[in-house]
Amino acid sequence: MDDCIFCKIVKGEIPSFKVYEDDRVYAFADINPISDGHTLIIPKSHAENLGDIAEDDLMAIHRVSQKMFHAMRSALGADGVALMQANGKSVNQVVMHYHLHLIPRRNSESRLAATSWELVPGDMAVIKTTSEKLAKAL
Amino acid sequence: MDDCIFCKIVKGEIPSFKVYEDDRVYAFADINPISDGHTLIIPKSHAENLGDIAEDDLMAIHRVSQKMFHAMRSALGADGVALMQANGKSVNQVVMHYHLHLIPRRNSESRLAATSWELVPGDMAVIKTTSEKLAKAL
Repeated sequence: MDDCIFCKIVKGEIPSFKVYEDDRVYAFADINPISDGHTLIIPKSHAENLGDIAEDDLMAIHRVSQKMFHAMRSALGADGVALMQANGKSVNQVVMHYHLHLIPRRNSESRLAATSWELVPGDMAVIKTTSEKLAKAL
Repeated sequence: MDDCIFCKIVKGEIPSFKVYEDDRVYAFADINPISDGHTLIIPKSHAENLGDIAEDDLMAIHRVSQKMFHAMRSALGADGVALMQANGKSVNQVVMHYHLHLIPRRNSESRLAATSWELVPGDMAVIKTTSEKLAKAL
């Protein structure tokens, strides 16, 4: 898309710190990193989110994510890696081109707020009803 | 694995609110939901994390995630869906069996802390060096 910043990065019209590239996938450093090594994997072909990305692109991205996980451990000394992928402005998707965040963390670094949430037991009746709705829609 | 709670859920030894099941994949409600409809997708075959999950299982999980995204929008009225997947205790992986969180959010609900982080520009020299290390390891 003409006005999409990530499409411009793929085309080289905006510079980026490239980490990986193949026919379908482009990976580059997040320039507002939550931790050192924070990387984004995107499809070269524009898709806004998980709802409209081509299945082959989605598969390619997750194959690369597995390689990236190993590289983050071996090359960056990551003790763990969090993956995050936001679909929609309501969950704070900022750039409307599908992107998968890979956020490495070493034990020496501060905790990732994005992976820390308090476990609060839910209402079992509500959970049951909602699960049934979802199951029927699948 | 004998002492894995998610393996026990797959085998039906521990009850769960099942949302979806096929040969490779099992999906069920998180009983400590961040939002109504919070669902986990796991491989039936035990794998601790992204580093050791079989590629076919990983692909199957992400195919299901795409269907789940559509179901969350159509059946639950989700305005957005956040995906989160933690690898390692250092990023707060609690159950050591690979699991992908799908967290729907309606605009009427409170914001998801897990998807909200402040954008802080990084040190470009550090980002460049780290990106080069990662690229070489891939």
